[in-house]
Amino acid sequence: MRKKSFGPKTLIYPTPVWCVGSYDKEGKPNVTTIAWGGICCSKPPCATVSLRKATYAYGSIRERGAYTISVPSERFAREADYFGMASGRKVDKFAATGLTPVKSELVDAPYVGEFPMVMECKVVNVVEVGLHTQFIGEIMDVKVDEDALDKKGLPDIQKVSPIIYTPEVGCYYGTGKPLGKAFSIGKEIK
Amino acid sequence: MRKKSFGPKTLIYPTPVWCVGSYDKEGKPNVTTIAWGGICCSKPPCATVSLRKATYAYGSIRERGAYTISVPSERFAREADYFGMASGRKVDKFAATGLTPVKSELVDAPYVGEFPMVMECKVVNVVEVGLHTQFIGEIMDVKVDEDALDKKGLPDIQKVSPIIYTPEVGCYYGTGKPLGKAFSIGKEIK
Repeated sequence: MRKKSFGPKTLIYPTPVWCVGSYDKEGKPNVTTIAWGGICCSKPPCATVSLRKATYAYGSIRERGAYTISVPSERFAREADYFGMASGRKVDKFAATGLTPVKSELVDAPYVGEFPMVMECKVVNVVEVGLHTQFIGEIMDVKVDEDALDKKGLPDIQKVSPIIYTPEVGCYYGTGKPLGKAFSIGKEIK
Repeated sequence: MRKKSFGPKTLIYPTPVWCVGSYDKEGKPNVTTIAWGGICCSKPPCATVSLRKATYAYGSIRERGAYTISVPSERFAREADYFGMASGRKVDKFAATGLTPVKSELVDAPYVGEFPMVMECKVVNVVEVGLHTQFIGEIMDVKVDEDALDKKGLPDIQKVSPIIYTPEVGCYYGTGKPLGKAFSIGKEIK
């Protein structure tokens, strides 16, 4: 198949839609939305979020050494988009959306109470990459709404219904249908 | 909503299913599947993949200073799963699946010719996190199959049909329905 070249761009699928919570100097809760992030290590369990230095969240996470990742479900796509546009320097984004900042008991940051899946992270490394700074956070806990669990008590992605972002194109998509079990469906191949 | 605590786990949705291509010392093409990765910077455009030191790909990427990310579409879920189970130390995974290693003209690594979306990366930083090492790669080019483009010539995620992985649960899922335009649907919120 002939491929079209797009040049050196941050263009790949899928990227996550994660809402990153932090407290500012005065203890005001803030939340911003990112697509530049992921898991980066199993032991210790670590996740990353990348932020521009110009953002309000950057200063807060630098100062407090902590952040949370709240996973919005599809029905919160509007709120997640708003979190990514407004600045915590100017507005209280929790107040504007009516969503609840819940103080983490494990790290110095708030998460979004209404979102079904939450990760609490303590910053263990800060990597200067360029326009963005990457915060590597050790995962202290993961919390999931009880009504988003399956029969075995594990998180059901179709109930969490996380959002995918398409860079360059700039659209949000939901989660699709199950395709099979990992470390299993490939066994047919010798 | 009451939340269940899962402890310090690499448990968050969505994570990507990306197939990472590299050449070994002898120039044999290899490919492995990861879910620990993401974009980490816009300028210079950079992406990350995390690998355990024990993997064959780790040594190859260290030595060659390059890797590619090939995005499998849903119909290649079996092959992607196989790439994540077999070791390039023992088998030629391209030969086993009948897929084509295409030599990148920009970096010293091969990509999967049949996969619809490809990113070519030059390693610019190596971050030791713990069990996993994070390779930060500068994105030199992104290539997309011409039949996976929309009318404007941009990649159509529903044609690329990337796969989502669910850590802990260990299942693959497809991409869902469009939810709206970024930097737009949140504007209704003051």
